[in-house]
Amino acid sequence: MARVEPGSVDRVACIGAGVIGSGWVAHFLARGYRVTAWDPAPDGEARMNRLVEAAWPALEALGLAPGASRANLSFEPTLAGAVAGAAFVQESAPDRLALKVDLLAEIDAAAAPEAVIASSTSGFGMTEMQVKAARPERLVVGHPFNPPYLVPLVEVVGGEKTAQDAVDWATAFYEAAGKTAVKMSREVPGFIANRLQEALWYEALHMVAAGEATVEEIDLALTAGPGLRWAFMGPFLTFHLAGGEGGMGHMLDHWPPGSMDPAWTRLVPPKVEGALRDTIVEGCEEEAGGRSAADLIRERDRKLIAVLRALREA
Amino acid sequence: MARVEPGSVDRVACIGAGVIGSGWVAHFLARGYRVTAWDPAPDGEARMNRLVEAAWPALEALGLAPGASRANLSFEPTLAGAVAGAAFVQESAPDRLALKVDLLAEIDAAAAPEAVIASSTSGFGMTEMQVKAARPERLVVGHPFNPPYLVPLVEVVGGEKTAQDAVDWATAFYEAAGKTAVKMSREVPGFIANRLQEALWYEALHMVAAGEATVEEIDLALTAGPGLRWAFMGPFLTFHLAGGEGGMGHMLDHWPPGSMDPAWTRLVPPKVEGALRDTIVEGCEEEAGGRSAADLIRERDRKLIAVLRALREA
Repeated sequence: MARVEPGSVDRVACIGAGVIGSGWVAHFLARGYRVTAWDPAPDGEARMNRLVEAAWPALEALGLAPGASRANLSFEPTLAGAVAGAAFVQESAPDRLALKVDLLAEIDAAAAPEAVIASSTSGFGMTEMQVKAARPERLVVGHPFNPPYLVPLVEVVGGEKTAQDAVDWATAFYEAAGKTAVKMSREVPGFIANRLQEALWYEALHMVAAGEATVEEIDLALTAGPGLRWAFMGPFLTFHLAGGEGGMGHMLDHWPPGSMDPAWTRLVPPKVEGALRDTIVEGCEEEAGGRSAADLIRERDRKLIAVLRALREA
Repeated sequence: MARVEPGSVDRVACIGAGVIGSGWVAHFLARGYRVTAWDPAPDGEARMNRLVEAAWPALEALGLAPGASRANLSFEPTLAGAVAGAAFVQESAPDRLALKVDLLAEIDAAAAPEAVIASSTSGFGMTEMQVKAARPERLVVGHPFNPPYLVPLVEVVGGEKTAQDAVDWATAFYEAAGKTAVKMSREVPGFIANRLQEALWYEALHMVAAGEATVEEIDLALTAGPGLRWAFMGPFLTFHLAGGEGGMGHMLDHWPPGSMDPAWTRLVPPKVEGALRDTIVEGCEEEAGGRSAADLIRERDRKLIAVLRALREA
């Protein structure tokens, strides 16, 4: 049977009633999907209802899709009942490898053969999780950021036995469901966002350990400084803009990463030259998409003002 | 002569008509100060006027202080004329050490003896910059983030010969002038925010170098993910919240930094145990200031919604 179009899915199955699983349920309900859910815990249904109820006012404030309703959630007595006939399954069980391996095999056995099955795991690659599944080719990682009903990011990546069309379908489905999907071309421990977060987190821990700054100073310096820009402009475009009309090429040639003396951080950067330099410059130009330095500055200022005003009012 | 109260300053002197210097001028004008400025370049005045003009619509959108006007800027023909009688001087010359050393000595010689003099340097410590000044005790670093008229952060720190009262006064003055001042207790290369930024930036460069992610994937993963939270919640409070009712103590004891296998980042974290653990837990509790996990979650959601809506509209 052919897979339904990613934009035509009307029901999704969500496995797991924890903070992440219930957060997914809240998101899908708010985007107008019917959701069938399951969790093995005796209080799973009550917990999911409580978490969805807590998330709902935020989702109403952001705007519900036509037809969105908490009544579209059906908590099923069995896993098989929850996934039966669903075009898409989001698994959000606790992050233990043996549990994930068995659970994904069980979901795979119960789901319609053409369904795509995604795991919320933050700790494992799909290659190590798909080993017991009969149809590993339709298993992908769909890693959300907490809370999944508010933070748009979902990182999508397959394992060695995953078919590219499942990764592509999941990415298109998440986008249709209102998420911002980053489709990765290979498995990387921690995916992307957690790696960036950990690098900053470890430097922060080192600073406290060395008596260079306090917990509160670090949090304040981030939120009053670079954190405000990172809400809408990543590190590459930020430095591309900082390079003026010369863009990232000018930045890399005039202030090569790691040229500060003494060093500003404990992580030594790679040597950015030759092909790596060109890849980065080209990536920035592609991302800028024809926007000049002046365009980017206007956009940065407009968004900074919007964020500052919004936070002042909140 | 006694120093004027930090909240009673009515005129500041700004030295340097580059992006940062002119950004400071725009900020101080918007907050209702009179500004006297100087730059040695023949086109310094024209450049400053152009940059202030470009910044002004953003400042109007954020709301001007009573009496704020671009007419309160006076570009002076000499450095001495610009700093004469000003209670506060912000130096924003190019970041070259020899230039900063001489310029700060010159400002120090020309300024009123009780004035506080701050350098915008991002590259040097005040200890190495204050060596030729006759009154080094009133020289501080006041490191802004670009653009200084929109990003609130200013990092304040003295050198070995700086008096604590000058650091305290500068901090209070910046706060009165509408900035968010982080007063550091010791000199650290890169201060705080740039260190955090560099740690993330170097991990991002490594990811591109290793073929783990592209420029655009990294920027998108940050802005659709952790960047949205970092606009209002730093890494410590974020993980304190993630620890639920057990807070940061629960986080550190159950998911010790660096426990991921394989490692999520190239920077090895410090061992977080004993006194360091307690310092971090206490810092988080102090920062939380009695807010429970539920309070913090509500606050996070409220601010996330505000930021998401603001960016959607911008």
